[in-house]
Amino acid sequence: MNGQHYAAVEAGGTKFRVAIAEGRNIVADTTVPTTSPDETLAATISFIRNWGQVAAVGIACFGPLDLEETSPTYGAIASTPKPGWSNAPVLTRLRDELGVPAAIDIDVGGAALGEWRWGAARDLRHFIYITVGTGIGGGMFVDGAVHHGMGHPEMGHISVERVSGDDFAGFCRFHGACLEGMASGPAIADRWGAQGADLSDRPEVWDLEATYLAQALRTFTYVAAPQRILLGGGVMQQPGLLELTRTKLADQLAGYVTGDTLRQPLDHYLVAPTFGQDAGLVGAIALAMEAASSGG
Amino acid sequence: MNGQHYAAVEAGGTKFRVAIAEGRNIVADTTVPTTSPDETLAATISFIRNWGQVAAVGIACFGPLDLEETSPTYGAIASTPKPGWSNAPVLTRLRDELGVPAAIDIDVGGAALGEWRWGAARDLRHFIYITVGTGIGGGMFVDGAVHHGMGHPEMGHISVERVSGDDFAGFCRFHGACLEGMASGPAIADRWGAQGADLSDRPEVWDLEATYLAQALRTFTYVAAPQRILLGGGVMQQPGLLELTRTKLADQLAGYVTGDTLRQPLDHYLVAPTFGQDAGLVGAIALAMEAASSGG
Repeated sequence: MNGQHYAAVEAGGTKFRVAIAEGRNIVADTTVPTTSPDETLAATISFIRNWGQVAAVGIACFGPLDLEETSPTYGAIASTPKPGWSNAPVLTRLRDELGVPAAIDIDVGGAALGEWRWGAARDLRHFIYITVGTGIGGGMFVDGAVHHGMGHPEMGHISVERVSGDDFAGFCRFHGACLEGMASGPAIADRWGAQGADLSDRPEVWDLEATYLAQALRTFTYVAAPQRILLGGGVMQQPGLLELTRTKLADQLAGYVTGDTLRQPLDHYLVAPTFGQDAGLVGAIALAMEAASSGG
Repeated sequence: MNGQHYAAVEAGGTKFRVAIAEGRNIVADTTVPTTSPDETLAATISFIRNWGQVAAVGIACFGPLDLEETSPTYGAIASTPKPGWSNAPVLTRLRDELGVPAAIDIDVGGAALGEWRWGAARDLRHFIYITVGTGIGGGMFVDGAVHHGMGHPEMGHISVERVSGDDFAGFCRFHGACLEGMASGPAIADRWGAQGADLSDRPEVWDLEATYLAQALRTFTYVAAPQRILLGGGVMQQPGLLELTRTKLADQLAGYVTGDTLRQPLDHYLVAPTFGQDAGLVGAIALAMEAASSGG
């Protein structure tokens, strides 16, 4: 076992995945259920400490997260309906108890960083990473860093144009029929009365899903002009959905594009992430490496 | 007359505004109608040359524009329905014939730069500038520079959710009922059968307009998490429209925000640009100064 070891934490709403990596290779890992912050963070810290010495810890965390660098609560969960987690100091607790440099980002931001270092967005200057699952989230990468504005993006909550004939009210408790309200995993289940995995052979389900996703990707394209969009998450495991979304995106853009990559076909513009369901954990490794090299 | 002089060109689809500035103060200016590229650029160059020596020229230009730095046609108009202007080499023609450093950006990008240096976005790290007029355009500013991705944003062409009861087909020749198709000046005129200026006393016109604008601003907020949005352009001259849009934006966000500035009221989040209808020309001055200092 040569080389540095890094602790990586993908902090999710139902479970924390915790791994020790040598370089980017995972050499040990565990899963901790997300209960209370005290319990979950203690179990996470205990696993890392019992493994041995690490150079740094990286955390790709569910949101909303305080990412204002000047904020006294930087790296803590922001106000959340999740019981007990509002203001939970995820970053400082791990950093202080482990006594090593630490870095945190929102889960999709971490995933974007990992894809940029080693995956489907390698060497790009500007791209967007989208995940479609229990929720819909997005991270934007600009000039070598995950983009943070005032807080972090919440790309799942943009407005979409209701498809003619679709009378589903929408699932989002804040916005009703926003993108997440119309096209997340729970929205699919609620609209069609079955889980996505059990709707595989119903083309109308995926045609509608692809239509809403293509609308959203058109919006991301026109707002930010990324060089590429990575589209992953559990819902995207449906065979053929990525290809269908790509075709509908080309239709939606209607030829109104300024970059040559956006001329059809969009095979190099809209792609699956390399690390699939591991994108968050791989991103956490990348965050740990950044923390180690910056001394953060 | 001490100090450097800069040539500033706001290149618009119907006219070019050309000015000589000492620092940021305009000391001479003219207007050139937009006819053919040869004629319009020659008249522009002639005005600047007749005035005397300038240190640099800055151009805030209508789009679409080739802004890929490695492109052989960098600084030229991209493919456009505007007769004769596809591939017109605006940047190189002005730079080479005037023999001075030159910088170009899309009109809304230039406007954003000017507002960042001297206006309503001074010292911000990340903001968005939107103009609502004949078209709807937006520029994004990230960490000290106008954001370019693959080409430049085309924020007017995002999808919006049709307001219940609104059966207007939409004005955009590419996307029909996109933001620009539903809420630009020509869309207002087409929907209501009169120019906006003659509809001042019809509150239903501005209520609907503010609803679409608020939807779009919510989308920009969730995609990019800007610290502020500047909202200008001819349509925004309607008294009370900015305030109404602000109220509707707060409603649309529905409390789902991560930054404290987004708690109501949004007086510091959604604001008018300082330079109003001169934002593009002021931005061209800022571009000229950048060209002079970088030797571009």
